[in-house]
Amino acid sequence: MLHERLNWRYATKKMDASKVVPQVKIDSILEAIRLAPTSSGLQPFEVIVVTNPDVKAKLRGAAYDQAQITDGSHILVFAAWDNYTDARIDAVVDQLVAERGLPRDAVSGYYDNLKSMYLPRSAAVNHDHAARQAFIALGLAVTAAAFEEVDATPMEGFAPDQVDEILGLRARGLGSVAILALGYRAEQGDWLLGMKKVRRPMDELVTLVA
Amino acid sequence: MLHERLNWRYATKKMDASKVVPQVKIDSILEAIRLAPTSSGLQPFEVIVVTNPDVKAKLRGAAYDQAQITDGSHILVFAAWDNYTDARIDAVVDQLVAERGLPRDAVSGYYDNLKSMYLPRSAAVNHDHAARQAFIALGLAVTAAAFEEVDATPMEGFAPDQVDEILGLRARGLGSVAILALGYRAEQGDWLLGMKKVRRPMDELVTLVA
Repeated sequence: MLHERLNWRYATKKMDASKVVPQVKIDSILEAIRLAPTSSGLQPFEVIVVTNPDVKAKLRGAAYDQAQITDGSHILVFAAWDNYTDARIDAVVDQLVAERGLPRDAVSGYYDNLKSMYLPRSAAVNHDHAARQAFIALGLAVTAAAFEEVDATPMEGFAPDQVDEILGLRARGLGSVAILALGYRAEQGDWLLGMKKVRRPMDELVTLVA
Repeated sequence: MLHERLNWRYATKKMDASKVVPQVKIDSILEAIRLAPTSSGLQPFEVIVVTNPDVKAKLRGAAYDQAQITDGSHILVFAAWDNYTDARIDAVVDQLVAERGLPRDAVSGYYDNLKSMYLPRSAAVNHDHAARQAFIALGLAVTAAAFEEVDATPMEGFAPDQVDEILGLRARGLGSVAILALGYRAEQGDWLLGMKKVRRPMDELVTLVA
């Protein structure tokens, strides 16, 4: 079932600009992102959903003019925390103890230790760590789109500084790390549609230490 | 279906060391990893599957003594390329043109441009980029395990240098970035089992630009 969906999907190159992904499917994709596992449960990223045509046009200009950004109906920008901070980690702990009905002591040792490791590191190292978590969620978003029969194009080919500027991300302590265009494949004009999916053979990708 | 599986899974803290994940399920999880989308289709990582008890014990020692590494039957180590090189990108192009029956000219412009961007960058930047791709696959591996009703614990809490040393990864141009322990939850002794799954509310995680 999962494999069938992963084989169905492909990085759509030409989307049909006349088609709009229904909100219920967008919500399903966002819920998969929300459920994605992340290191220590920090979920150190946000997702900006762009449907505004003017903003999409600007994003396209910051992304090598890739047409899926304006032809797709919903553009998801994954924006990772620019750094780990006391306040951000405390907010995670606050929610955790509230929802699980735990005494703060039950988890504070773990997260205090986490702070002692993360907070002395550079913002660049921490942003990168946060970006990796966002990429777990990106993978789940692509998977969820495939289950919803929504086409999706994951993109890293864009100027993060420009995207951050367009969306005002820096002021929110965020930096863009990936874009996912959501829409529907065009019937014609997609050179990749119908091409064989190429993947490295299993014996090159995997080694067994038995 | 996908959400149900994502809600079922959790980062298992105590695995039953007497249970072994059947090979057919391991193969299914590895196939999801192989099918994961990656930037420009590079798949810039490998997966080391460790079942050897002595090697698992050493890995546990490099990973804050987390018991899932010896109690899980199969330990997947995600190891990202230490750098992008001409030869590595050429190998991707070779396979692509062979499997799609394309003239090399049809894709060489794209990958030459990629080389002109990637090869001048530092190894650290490129390894980090490769690591992000591995994290897409990590997310798909966790998802595939959930579909197979296999418990999985994703881990970043380990000393990469020690893991690289134990598995001889540096000599292969690889660096460990994540571990996924696969096995079956113990009936007793897992403090996390049965706890509410806590996730940031949708309105904190997602912003709409309409």
